[in-house]
Amino acid sequence: MIEYDGTNYCGWQRQSKNCSVQSVLEEALRPLNGNKNVVVVGSGRTDSGVHALGQVAHFDIDTNLAPERINAALNAETPDDILILRCDETNNDFHSRFSAVRRTYFYQVLLIPSVIHRHYTWYPNFKFDISVIEECAKLIIGEHDFSSFCKASTEAESKICVIYDSLWYKTDQMITYRISGNRFLHSMVRMVVGTMLETSRGKNDIDDFYKKLENSSSKLKTFTAPAKGLFLLKVDYK
Amino acid sequence: MIEYDGTNYCGWQRQSKNCSVQSVLEEALRPLNGNKNVVVVGSGRTDSGVHALGQVAHFDIDTNLAPERINAALNAETPDDILILRCDETNNDFHSRFSAVRRTYFYQVLLIPSVIHRHYTWYPNFKFDISVIEECAKLIIGEHDFSSFCKASTEAESKICVIYDSLWYKTDQMITYRISGNRFLHSMVRMVVGTMLETSRGKNDIDDFYKKLENSSSKLKTFTAPAKGLFLLKVDYK
Repeated sequence: MIEYDGTNYCGWQRQSKNCSVQSVLEEALRPLNGNKNVVVVGSGRTDSGVHALGQVAHFDIDTNLAPERINAALNAETPDDILILRCDETNNDFHSRFSAVRRTYFYQVLLIPSVIHRHYTWYPNFKFDISVIEECAKLIIGEHDFSSFCKASTEAESKICVIYDSLWYKTDQMITYRISGNRFLHSMVRMVVGTMLETSRGKNDIDDFYKKLENSSSKLKTFTAPAKGLFLLKVDYK
Repeated sequence: MIEYDGTNYCGWQRQSKNCSVQSVLEEALRPLNGNKNVVVVGSGRTDSGVHALGQVAHFDIDTNLAPERINAALNAETPDDILILRCDETNNDFHSRFSAVRRTYFYQVLLIPSVIHRHYTWYPNFKFDISVIEECAKLIIGEHDFSSFCKASTEAESKICVIYDSLWYKTDQMITYRISGNRFLHSMVRMVVGTMLETSRGKNDIDDFYKKLENSSSKLKTFTAPAKGLFLLKVDYK
């Protein structure tokens, strides 16, 4: 299980430049595998700037080291914005992505500007109605085709996701949106959050949000909330 | 009133290099003062790496701009780790440092490692007893000569400070120490925090901490907690 601050990364997934969390982990694992490449498979991608408190990944490695030793060796090698929280041996049936049954994210929205929280929150510089976003969040629960809430380039064949939890709660100077579901499409949480706030700006109403969710004609425009407010909280397995 | 993330600064006070919060503010104010130097006087210094949610400073400026316009102009000029929260006109009797009657700080200690909080907390990599630091915190309340809890180089003539509040509280994965008093010496809060934790490691007891506070012979060694966990929360005036 891995925690990371996504601020300085191009995201989870390996890219041509060595700027992803996955690449950093693969580089750190290589010396433990007799200098042979290791492929680290995450439970899912996170975009550039998105954080994780409980990302899960698996890899195959040829070593006699106990998992705790691998854990310690990785933490010694990785920079201070990546922390391996736990490392366990597993069997070949386990797949970090395909065995996952539930993923939980949260998104932090600041109610007053703050520099201390700037890398981990979004401060929308407009007024919005909290009761409206609370109503929108309730509509999200259940099975929906999220075609209106994913990047146009999303490759997934099915855009149907089952959402188990979807709610806003208030803590101190921020409100946090927590969502869990069986799967998520590219940018889906950020588009859900951004569009809820867009709905609550007064120009639209909850009915427009509902139509969008049902993929019927709606005057509401989707909006993608900034990456920095988003955290992958945890991934559950059978 | 100013909020800042002290991570990338050499502290509040102007130094030879242009790396302090004070210098950044003075540079930003100069164009508003017909390109003449402005001296910004803070309520007190904060060390390198120490943060502030409510630092207060005053300055004299020759301008027709309303305080809100100065506020907006400063926020447009300063980097995103400094935020001017409020700007008010005052009279000549007001002095950000000498008129202050109470200062409040807090210090965040992590109970489990976290990369997300790494710039704003200290994770002491040892076991300690929370009930011991709670007892130490109670002893601090009242008037004491804090000679044992300040940097040897401290120039203040009197080392007597009156502490109004001193307590630990627990939130989620961290414990926070909050202290308010009429004045504070150089590194005092960090030395109080570090030494409380040193006391609670089991090698010493509360009596050793009490002796230290009374400046009598004590086997307890003072320890200065890292700057990054410390925040100047607010400054109160008459």
